[in-house]
Amino acid sequence: MDIGGIGEFSLIERIRQRMKGRSSPEVAMGIGDDCAILRPQADMEWVITTDTQVEDVHFRRAWLTPYQIGWRAMAVNLSDIAAMGAEPFAALAALSLPATTEEAFFERFLDGICDLGERFACPLIGGNLARDPAHLSLTFTLLGRAPRGLSVRRSGARAGDEIWVSGRLGGSAAGLRTFLQTIPGSGEFESTLRRRYGQPQPRVHEAIFLRETAQLTSMIDLSDGLAGDLGHICDESGVGAVLVADALPLEAGVRDVATALGDEPLTYALYGGEDFELCCTAAPGTLTPLREEFRQRFGLDLTRVGSISAERGLRIVQVDGSQTSLAPQAFDHFHRSAT
Amino acid sequence: MDIGGIGEFSLIERIRQRMKGRSSPEVAMGIGDDCAILRPQADMEWVITTDTQVEDVHFRRAWLTPYQIGWRAMAVNLSDIAAMGAEPFAALAALSLPATTEEAFFERFLDGICDLGERFACPLIGGNLARDPAHLSLTFTLLGRAPRGLSVRRSGARAGDEIWVSGRLGGSAAGLRTFLQTIPGSGEFESTLRRRYGQPQPRVHEAIFLRETAQLTSMIDLSDGLAGDLGHICDESGVGAVLVADALPLEAGVRDVATALGDEPLTYALYGGEDFELCCTAAPGTLTPLREEFRQRFGLDLTRVGSISAERGLRIVQVDGSQTSLAPQAFDHFHRSAT
Repeated sequence: MDIGGIGEFSLIERIRQRMKGRSSPEVAMGIGDDCAILRPQADMEWVITTDTQVEDVHFRRAWLTPYQIGWRAMAVNLSDIAAMGAEPFAALAALSLPATTEEAFFERFLDGICDLGERFACPLIGGNLARDPAHLSLTFTLLGRAPRGLSVRRSGARAGDEIWVSGRLGGSAAGLRTFLQTIPGSGEFESTLRRRYGQPQPRVHEAIFLRETAQLTSMIDLSDGLAGDLGHICDESGVGAVLVADALPLEAGVRDVATALGDEPLTYALYGGEDFELCCTAAPGTLTPLREEFRQRFGLDLTRVGSISAERGLRIVQVDGSQTSLAPQAFDHFHRSAT
Repeated sequence: MDIGGIGEFSLIERIRQRMKGRSSPEVAMGIGDDCAILRPQADMEWVITTDTQVEDVHFRRAWLTPYQIGWRAMAVNLSDIAAMGAEPFAALAALSLPATTEEAFFERFLDGICDLGERFACPLIGGNLARDPAHLSLTFTLLGRAPRGLSVRRSGARAGDEIWVSGRLGGSAAGLRTFLQTIPGSGEFESTLRRRYGQPQPRVHEAIFLRETAQLTSMIDLSDGLAGDLGHICDESGVGAVLVADALPLEAGVRDVATALGDEPLTYALYGGEDFELCCTAAPGTLTPLREEFRQRFGLDLTRVGSISAERGLRIVQVDGSQTSLAPQAFDHFHRSAT
């Protein structure tokens, strides 16, 4: 059966049943009314974000499982909550789907949303189901909590701060390339890279750990590529940045894919986007002592990749000492397409 | 120029500039970071809702001005905030548009969003811009405030309560019919009816007045048609309802359009949907004394249309005393289409 045959209100009721017994202390009432009702806690501030994933713009149905489509649409929003150093606690899902969507697809798609939500204690508290005759269009709105005044913004970076990133970069862009064309010799890394693209891991716990143990001056998640996202930090902070080319931690397999395609591997980290790792800044010496604990807790590298400069603009230093300017070109949804 | 030529980040910057100096006390930081930051006030609760308008499902571009498209997408969400008796204070806009959208269209569209937002002190504090190759897909998420414990839910209606509606019903459905086909003799009312469909007025102030001056047991906004929405109240409250056919306040011109098309006029109120009037319940005698003040303040009727019954199901009483069961058929976005 397709979801047109099941009907909007039955589908909403299914989601409501899935959420039974899953709640957050701030949520006085979830699904089932015109609005959800929230009760703020004293001494906390809340963060809120919204993001849309459009089929054939952000992903193709042939590339992802239904589970991954749901997961990914939720994950990109969780990553924005993480970027503030906040803890997610509630989600609203505005899902537009063709009426011909198969029930089995819809259920697996919900599994992906709900599994990831459960992992981060972030239940669905509301949403909207609409028919979209053309394609899937998936908008989530997420709420998170942080101690009052402690959300980490983009705007606090100061000249002299170190720039750090979590994990490894470029994997999502390389994974996307393996969907777009057959790449000789990519077999060894293909499934890992595709998973980096298809099922990103929002760095929520990692960001909270960093916020709690170090005085971060700014943070962002890497959705547009390091050059673009660091560019956002610089714009909001009124500073510039220098990256060290040799320091950028590339995901295993990125070099192979880039070389096979005649690309410069660093461009996958700088402009590829959708790695959903963290990029943060802190005063010199702040994060170096945390590297080992970070690796042990999360199984991830924490890598220094450059410094904030008073001089505006983004530059990259090569191993021979030569500097070049980087276009702070972020992924522009109207200029380029993931597909 | 089209918005593809302007680019995502320039468009976001335009929206950010429009919001300069417009803020709500709860908003510590608006557009410009991974999330907006909110600071709850003591003794208040917040309500949150999300709703999507899809081109060619909820509206056609040929029927509405760009201004009305923006207005309408914002209005349907404000109406959900109103349905809780809450006061809106912030909005997030996840807007997906073709890259070929003309700049002039986009600016007038923003005018519609911003004018209505300003009217209700509800600035944009965040959002998302994405490319949708097929059509406009407009998702808003709105936040509202109410005194703690006083949001009006769907679930409190009790047997014996009176059922009341604001304004006049069926106008939006009749307006929609005048777009779909030429209706002889509808000229007199056509522009009013079309405006009811294209530029609905969310009843925010009306709902707050009712919540503050009367003890309401439940409230909902009429987005799916009176039968469907009252059905939601009954489902959540575990009751039934009896409507009085003769009491339903039809919008001027609805009878003319329905008669010309061979329809029963009441069906426009019961199943037409998108009037965005309020439907509320209260103990007998509660609202009658407020009718005159309501009319004077808001220029709108407040009309008693029936009673809540212990017996489940929805019935309608004709002027001759005969009762018939009503299918509580709400507008189902997967079953039927507005277009």
